[in-house]
Amino acid sequence: MQKPSKMIYMDHAATTAVDPRVVEAMLPYFGTRYGNASSIYGLGQEAAKAIDEARRTVADILACQPREVIFTSCGTESDNLALRGVGWARRNLGKGNHIVTSSIEHHAVSHTCEQLEKHFGFETTYLPVDQHGLVDPDDVGRAIKDNTTLISIMYANNEVGTIEPIAEIGQIAREKGVPFHTDAVQAGGTLGLDVNELNVDLLSLSAHKFYGPKGVGVLYVRQGVPLLPTQTGGGHEHNYRAGTENVPYIVGLATALKIAYEELEANNRRIAALRDRLIEGVLGRIVEVALTGHPTNRLPNSASFVFKYIEGESMLLNLDLAGVCASSGSACGSASLEPSHVLLALGIPHEVAHGSLRLTLGRENTTEDVDYVLEILPGIVQKLRAMSPLYKANVMRKT
Amino acid sequence: MQKPSKMIYMDHAATTAVDPRVVEAMLPYFGTRYGNASSIYGLGQEAAKAIDEARRTVADILACQPREVIFTSCGTESDNLALRGVGWARRNLGKGNHIVTSSIEHHAVSHTCEQLEKHFGFETTYLPVDQHGLVDPDDVGRAIKDNTTLISIMYANNEVGTIEPIAEIGQIAREKGVPFHTDAVQAGGTLGLDVNELNVDLLSLSAHKFYGPKGVGVLYVRQGVPLLPTQTGGGHEHNYRAGTENVPYIVGLATALKIAYEELEANNRRIAALRDRLIEGVLGRIVEVALTGHPTNRLPNSASFVFKYIEGESMLLNLDLAGVCASSGSACGSASLEPSHVLLALGIPHEVAHGSLRLTLGRENTTEDVDYVLEILPGIVQKLRAMSPLYKANVMRKT
Repeated sequence: MQKPSKMIYMDHAATTAVDPRVVEAMLPYFGTRYGNASSIYGLGQEAAKAIDEARRTVADILACQPREVIFTSCGTESDNLALRGVGWARRNLGKGNHIVTSSIEHHAVSHTCEQLEKHFGFETTYLPVDQHGLVDPDDVGRAIKDNTTLISIMYANNEVGTIEPIAEIGQIAREKGVPFHTDAVQAGGTLGLDVNELNVDLLSLSAHKFYGPKGVGVLYVRQGVPLLPTQTGGGHEHNYRAGTENVPYIVGLATALKIAYEELEANNRRIAALRDRLIEGVLGRIVEVALTGHPTNRLPNSASFVFKYIEGESMLLNLDLAGVCASSGSACGSASLEPSHVLLALGIPHEVAHGSLRLTLGRENTTEDVDYVLEILPGIVQKLRAMSPLYKANVMRKT
Repeated sequence: MQKPSKMIYMDHAATTAVDPRVVEAMLPYFGTRYGNASSIYGLGQEAAKAIDEARRTVADILACQPREVIFTSCGTESDNLALRGVGWARRNLGKGNHIVTSSIEHHAVSHTCEQLEKHFGFETTYLPVDQHGLVDPDDVGRAIKDNTTLISIMYANNEVGTIEPIAEIGQIAREKGVPFHTDAVQAGGTLGLDVNELNVDLLSLSAHKFYGPKGVGVLYVRQGVPLLPTQTGGGHEHNYRAGTENVPYIVGLATALKIAYEELEANNRRIAALRDRLIEGVLGRIVEVALTGHPTNRLPNSASFVFKYIEGESMLLNLDLAGVCASSGSACGSASLEPSHVLLALGIPHEVAHGSLRLTLGRENTTEDVDYVLEILPGIVQKLRAMSPLYKANVMRKT
């Protein structure tokens, strides 16, 4: 099959192109509207007003108060601020030092827990997940101790797309009086974000996952939840996050989020149909392959697999040569040679976890894109397996 | 005098408009070059390459190794990472918990020291300054104790423009074996940044002070200086700062810094002449006014004053009405009604410190701009003083 003239991008979980409408909304703030939002003259107040409007837009989508929205520099910062900020503040109040989280969190959560354990005297419980990547809310309830100060469970997993039972977990957290944070970075722009329906007290978002720019995020913090700022200086963001406001990106984030939720249903429906076509095609055309994550309760744009007898990275390079951008799991850990902690937590054997492939669809993908991938992928898999000593041994053993 | 058709911006210490050449350099990374720099396919590697180039550009200007350059989300983050990161890492190594800083630092440094003291068991010495805002290097030497783990003294003060004797302080720090951080946020784009000439081990920069975007900064960290990351997650920035890289802004920062240092001499010479015209004009035309900061050893673009019997804020609003953007001190603290901690540290009385005005010039300012301000300012001052009970009492006492 002919390599397509245009690159086919199927790694929307890693990042997205900025929507041209978002770029257009940001541009004036690089140019004539360049004021510092803390300045009292007109140019500064114009910037402050733009931030206020952006904050209201985000608050409307989260069904919260504008004051509960903190703009940060990325999803990782939001996660860090939630864990460190609440962890430290509540410990100061004598509310304990124990964090409950899952074993499939993004490193922004898990590595932060590890540092809090290693250097700041915290204790963490990492809950297991089932073979589909689901956290059992009852496990959360059982893990809560007298010194539990925070629960952090992701909304949807970035590698396998599984959607966690956030509202149920939130209900349990509320009954026990423990603040509940969810890393919604991968869910933002796709799943509902009403913080009351979700029963969450803190929620992280990152703009570049929903066609906004890289380098701006949100942390929602429910009023009354104590938070020690992790970045101190001027009194920006209601004293929660110091630093001159990144006006263009804050405007960009709000614009991107608004577009995503205005067009949510149509996009999700169309993209989920493409995802199903992709999953069925891969499972139907290739042997010794399994879908990872939950079969149905998954992000509408996420298709993830493990292929036996293959190194995921070889698959990616071959797909790249054929004009397709894909991932073996998380972009954030792609420099690592270790298999994904998420796949291992799902009970996938070490050697199989190495053969992971994540295809995450987006607004610009078409049926033709999916069909092209379904055309070329079997050949790539076959070629790579033919070079695999393990595969040969297995085939020989079977015959 | 007629209000000018175009706004006159004299608050370049607060922020600057993004140079159109910088916007042009950034734009492709919002559009077709939107890859995640951690992704292994071509689109991702293209982003990684852009970051590598930006890092080299910055390293060339700092005369350091690219690996020693960490991109952050702003100058405040850079300062926080320096203080918290080195503070925590060296304390873990048994290198003490005492920080030496000055009493005129930006809040990004001083408030971070305060939090480290209040919540993390650190101890801080705040060194005094003389009436011009200068730190005495011998004071630094005398303040260093066995448990001193970090020294942080700003390169140039953001409110009064005074340039500190960084190289001398660095020499003393080196002799005592204590890492030395300088907040160069206000100096970046104007003063030399060679980290070896400056004898610094850590240095903070913020792009929006030199015609780059708001929301991206640099922390230089000399090889061998231990640093505990304050934002954990993926292994970005050589494991020093997690979070998907903000490719457009990183490219923008490097482009802006390169332009600033290519055009440094001509800009500094021209702008310093405007500054001198402004200072001489204000001191010559208005009574009961004093220049704040050092008379000569000051940033080429900075003119700062205190006017007796006036509230700085009233002056700013009147200037704004006349089409001039100015500041009473730091934009970052402008929501506060307290007089500037910097002016108080210079020994300026509380009631006089309230009458501060900072005019910071930039590339687009002209002689006509300066002359316009010199035309209107005496009238504004006269009008405000006429309404001041203190002024009337004083005038009556004198006559």
